[in-house]
Amino acid sequence: MNIPSKHLEDLVEHFSSLPGIGKKTALRLVLNILKRKDEDVNSFSKALGEIKTRICSCKTCGNISDAEVCSICSQHSRNQSIICVVEDIRDIMAIENTDQFFGVYHVLGGVISPMEGIGPNDLNIPSLLDRVNQGGVVEVILALNASMEGDTTNFYLYRKLAETNITITTLSRGVSVGAELHYTDELTLGRSIVNRTLFDMAPVKR
Amino acid sequence: MNIPSKHLEDLVEHFSSLPGIGKKTALRLVLNILKRKDEDVNSFSKALGEIKTRICSCKTCGNISDAEVCSICSQHSRNQSIICVVEDIRDIMAIENTDQFFGVYHVLGGVISPMEGIGPNDLNIPSLLDRVNQGGVVEVILALNASMEGDTTNFYLYRKLAETNITITTLSRGVSVGAELHYTDELTLGRSIVNRTLFDMAPVKR
Repeated sequence: MNIPSKHLEDLVEHFSSLPGIGKKTALRLVLNILKRKDEDVNSFSKALGEIKTRICSCKTCGNISDAEVCSICSQHSRNQSIICVVEDIRDIMAIENTDQFFGVYHVLGGVISPMEGIGPNDLNIPSLLDRVNQGGVVEVILALNASMEGDTTNFYLYRKLAETNITITTLSRGVSVGAELHYTDELTLGRSIVNRTLFDMAPVKR
Repeated sequence: MNIPSKHLEDLVEHFSSLPGIGKKTALRLVLNILKRKDEDVNSFSKALGEIKTRICSCKTCGNISDAEVCSICSQHSRNQSIICVVEDIRDIMAIENTDQFFGVYHVLGGVISPMEGIGPNDLNIPSLLDRVNQGGVVEVILALNASMEGDTTNFYLYRKLAETNITITTLSRGVSVGAELHYTDELTLGRSIVNRTLFDMAPVKR
């Protein structure tokens, strides 16, 4: 692409370094920004420049937070003895949206991936083990994605936590609510038969 | 979405105000930015904050430029007597990529659209007419998109320019090079028959 301005090209480069954004999309975004009011662009630039200094991780769970302890960890109504282990803060948002979990979280910040050189000590795993060893934890829910890396991480955590006598659970896998059986993949349908549950008239609180 | 930080939410709002970027994508982009080095984020923020002040429009053609006159208008090898009228700077980049045009451009900055309240005076149309009236222009190529608004603008420009005695041309419309006839839409195929050209062994310089 033959961009006629060095400054424009520079900003297009920055935008196209974001995941899923190519050069053409980046150019479209920058041209849109050029049409905006100065104060809008300045406040965008300010929010971007301050993001790294203004945001911190919760010192307990690793969730993104404006304060030292995040809004979930500091809520007294939440059950501090059940810890749900997730990969990413987006998983917290997804689980919070269900309104079905009232314990606390622990954000690993990734999963173990030998291919990418990510080991247990690059993640928030030591802090999870510390938290469990301090006592008071009854259950750890492993809520990682069902990928090879997720399974490896689950297995590693299970081995580490099995030494303690807390309950270790994981999310149930099965047919999605509302999905049609004949469209469900074999692996999921197979697991949902093996892990069948007792029939209950109201399995999900809505 | 239940974002646990006010600053994060603020930046997500800014990103999701960009065209084609929703809340979830914006969050993904911001989380990616959070993982970067401070200096990368600062240089991104700086490029964004300075974009409106650093970039100017070429005073001749309206193209984006770092200087008063853009790199195309200031090239002596270009034929200043042929002006190609385009909607947007992206169209200039597309035509420049073909290496088939050696005249100069005029960027309208949009098309006439009564529905959106955009009239001729909101666009760079007066400056085009001034440029033509100053003399020295032999041909104006109307290279706008074939939409209702593009056609309206073409028609308006044609009416205005017909008073002078310059040649007014438009891009040829027809079957794409390499396209299969039976997949081409009727309108395009119809036009390509009506506007058929004399057979030439080398119609496109590559």
